[in-house]
Amino acid sequence: MITGKNYTGSELSANGSKTFKTFNPQLNIENQHVFFEASSEEIDTAVSLASNAFMTFGTISGKKKAEFLNAIADEIIALDDILIQTYCSESGLPEGRAKGERGRTIFQLRSFAELVSEGSWVDATIDTAQLDRTPVPKPDLRKMLIPLGPIVVFGASNFPLAYSTAGGDTAAALAAGCPVIVKSHPMHAGTGELVASAVIKAAEKTGMPNGVFSNLNSSGIEVGVQLVKHSGVKAVGFTGSIRGGRALYDLASQREEPIPVFAEMGSINPVVILPEALKNRSKSLAKTYASSITLSTGQFCTNPGLLLGIKGETLSNFIKELSDEIVKIEPTCMLHPSIIGAYENNRSKALSQAELTVVAIHDADVKDNYARQAITTVEGKTFLENTTLHHEVFGPYSMVVQCKDVKELEQIISNLEGQLTGTVIAENEEADKYSNVINALQNRVGRIIYNGVPTGVEVCPAMVHGGPYPASTDSRFTAVGIHSINRWVRPFSFQNWPNNLLPDELKNENPLQISRLVNGKTTTSKI
Amino acid sequence: MITGKNYTGSELSANGSKTFKTFNPQLNIENQHVFFEASSEEIDTAVSLASNAFMTFGTISGKKKAEFLNAIADEIIALDDILIQTYCSESGLPEGRAKGERGRTIFQLRSFAELVSEGSWVDATIDTAQLDRTPVPKPDLRKMLIPLGPIVVFGASNFPLAYSTAGGDTAAALAAGCPVIVKSHPMHAGTGELVASAVIKAAEKTGMPNGVFSNLNSSGIEVGVQLVKHSGVKAVGFTGSIRGGRALYDLASQREEPIPVFAEMGSINPVVILPEALKNRSKSLAKTYASSITLSTGQFCTNPGLLLGIKGETLSNFIKELSDEIVKIEPTCMLHPSIIGAYENNRSKALSQAELTVVAIHDADVKDNYARQAITTVEGKTFLENTTLHHEVFGPYSMVVQCKDVKELEQIISNLEGQLTGTVIAENEEADKYSNVINALQNRVGRIIYNGVPTGVEVCPAMVHGGPYPASTDSRFTAVGIHSINRWVRPFSFQNWPNNLLPDELKNENPLQISRLVNGKTTTSKI
Repeated sequence: MITGKNYTGSELSANGSKTFKTFNPQLNIENQHVFFEASSEEIDTAVSLASNAFMTFGTISGKKKAEFLNAIADEIIALDDILIQTYCSESGLPEGRAKGERGRTIFQLRSFAELVSEGSWVDATIDTAQLDRTPVPKPDLRKMLIPLGPIVVFGASNFPLAYSTAGGDTAAALAAGCPVIVKSHPMHAGTGELVASAVIKAAEKTGMPNGVFSNLNSSGIEVGVQLVKHSGVKAVGFTGSIRGGRALYDLASQREEPIPVFAEMGSINPVVILPEALKNRSKSLAKTYASSITLSTGQFCTNPGLLLGIKGETLSNFIKELSDEIVKIEPTCMLHPSIIGAYENNRSKALSQAELTVVAIHDADVKDNYARQAITTVEGKTFLENTTLHHEVFGPYSMVVQCKDVKELEQIISNLEGQLTGTVIAENEEADKYSNVINALQNRVGRIIYNGVPTGVEVCPAMVHGGPYPASTDSRFTAVGIHSINRWVRPFSFQNWPNNLLPDELKNENPLQISRLVNGKTTTSKI
Repeated sequence: MITGKNYTGSELSANGSKTFKTFNPQLNIENQHVFFEASSEEIDTAVSLASNAFMTFGTISGKKKAEFLNAIADEIIALDDILIQTYCSESGLPEGRAKGERGRTIFQLRSFAELVSEGSWVDATIDTAQLDRTPVPKPDLRKMLIPLGPIVVFGASNFPLAYSTAGGDTAAALAAGCPVIVKSHPMHAGTGELVASAVIKAAEKTGMPNGVFSNLNSSGIEVGVQLVKHSGVKAVGFTGSIRGGRALYDLASQREEPIPVFAEMGSINPVVILPEALKNRSKSLAKTYASSITLSTGQFCTNPGLLLGIKGETLSNFIKELSDEIVKIEPTCMLHPSIIGAYENNRSKALSQAELTVVAIHDADVKDNYARQAITTVEGKTFLENTTLHHEVFGPYSMVVQCKDVKELEQIISNLEGQLTGTVIAENEEADKYSNVINALQNRVGRIIYNGVPTGVEVCPAMVHGGPYPASTDSRFTAVGIHSINRWVRPFSFQNWPNNLLPDELKNENPLQISRLVNGKTTTSKI
């Protein structure tokens, strides 16, 4: 079922000469399939097909788009075992995780199907004419959200399904009415091709125009660079490293016509543990955080990489308990030799910093590609002065910063880069006392959590997955939840436009019965 | 009342050594006041004060912000004659226009006051916990829009009030909870200082923190450059030329922490005149468009700079009628010698292009700084091949493109850069026949107008003033209307946050009685 070819629209294509294979990190061997990197011509074909497809797909009804999205979900389910097996063989992640992530992917697709089927998401806004207004008549103005055009989606290494081929970015873009070209992630090109085949089948079954979706293989950066620079591409979605995301952002903003890039680039997700809570719950917190730090081998962008507390005996005890707990956990496999290589490199770099103490490192013999978790600690002053310690170590690693007082704690938080999440561990009565600390934390993050762990990103309308740079390239959007559709749309106004030529969303009779803002009042009534 | 100094917060400051004066284009002489360009230290002070002010201003209630915005409106009205006189002496625009623009400015401030006083604009979204969900409980998540931080606003040359010191960008940013630093436009620094004094008075009267607003003078680009590069600045609003807007966009995207720039940079606002309509209404269209092209000496960003029709006798007649009408109109004054200089330069450049015919140019002797309107015409093929002809000639100038057929018309539209507006002049029965032309036009613009003129930007929720690049740097936002507040805010999530620590907008009891999306349903009920 895996051909190793690209999908340029519905066509399987392998014109290029560059090939590559994926890798099974559990078995520490290459997988069998050979993938063909997309050629420059195949990239042009995919973009050209997408531009053509946009002329019709950009204006089809929400009901039709919902059929398409639901059909993608159905076809992904129909892939069944082969998808789960390929996922596991290309990621080293366990079957339970694969099935969970498939469930999340399906849920996302169906959520967007529901959103666009209902239709009110377009924020229809109508101000009717006042012909008798002086000195000049007021025209009739009607506004709604319309799609931007072809979108390029870069799959993430750590979520082969939910943030890749038909993941959140793709589902949101298709729901908006934007054709999608996926730059497939080389680590799970087989998983990508399988999901792409499901999307193509769904497109054909529901009568979508050819080019509404393409899937391009790549092993290096060339395919992505050409896509982002292509004048036919109108926006970019990316999940991955700061270096990768920033490079794409720079390319996109240097174009003759700059285009928006929404890159979610991860963070160190600071956790502030306040003294009373630590005194009362040290043991259970140690257990909870040992588990959160090592969850999925620390390969979540919401992994808690930084724990902050006030120096003292209680914090010293907690550090010891956390160390005891974390070394009890069996090491697990990382996604790819290059990921474990980077983990070991970055951890070594952190460990080599002056005045940093390693308090725990798993010392068992581990299999190839298995990561040894580690906990380190530094003084607040050291952390403040050495920004190398602020960099993410992607993997099961966390650092405890011992602040000399509340003032230093607040200062450290204020000096952090932007973060996806911030967590506060507190007793209810002490939150007030530390309001400056909490305010400083809010200022640096996209989501703030009370007495919990940052790992686990609920897919729901109230979720924000994003945050100030470099957590994302634009804090005004979220990558998760139905409102993530706003990344791929623009408002558009019709002035004095004839009723019969307006889109259904804006017609007087409100045939879709959607909720609209008419002359300042929200209503589903006709005009 | 005009001191020539900067406002760094509430303090009048003139530490710099560089000075300049404004110019009265009607009298063709310099105005008397001497303005002090902001020094590097004054810029730092303004940003530092704004960052401090944000710590409180970012979270004050909507009611308090509304008081502030309404007080600004009141103080602007209280400036009375001195404001109107200064406006006229610094712009050459007539008193009626000054009063109209003041009215628009007041209306914008009061519209935002109403919006934030009501409060539902924060898009409060609540998904309550499901503790019994398997395999893991669903957390409680609550999301709302919060302000980005200090915003820099660049005043526009052509709207000394409505798009300047306390214009749309400033009103939207203050409504959002963002402190504002205005880079005052050098052509109307006196008008700017007067309005700034009104804002400062209003801030003091309503108890706003010092630094919520600053006004910095500048004659060159240095002040703007330093502001956009300043790490304390979190976003930029700009109205002006493509060259200026793009330079700021480039600076902002090259920062270590890139920040959003919303630049509205004008366009040539294509008008498509379909054959039946032209046959039936040639004379009245000629009159209407002669007036639209010369309105405010052609100094609107929505000025119709490009008229498109199908070649033939009817179009030839229309060109003649338009020419006859436009030369009947008395030339009027432009904003500044540098503006008329640019107009004459750009018009000469256009006129020197091969295969372009000048069909009308006002040949009367005109006063200094008065602009002579002109109409030119070219074949569709020439226009397609020579992109110099696509550039805006800011002033009372328009070009009629004679397309050989519908196909060429569609091709020309598809090849246009992004535009603020597009207009279709049609009889109802012919719109269907030209649906491809109309679709192509929709794809290139932010607002489409039927049987009207693009000049006149209604301030209402359904307005879009923006569009694909280079009409704006980000087509996903509008510069006009209440939704322009979305440029300056980001979504923020609270997870399992204690009810008493939540902002009022998200508390169970909904004390503000705002409309919220709770578990997928829009409601004003408590939880």
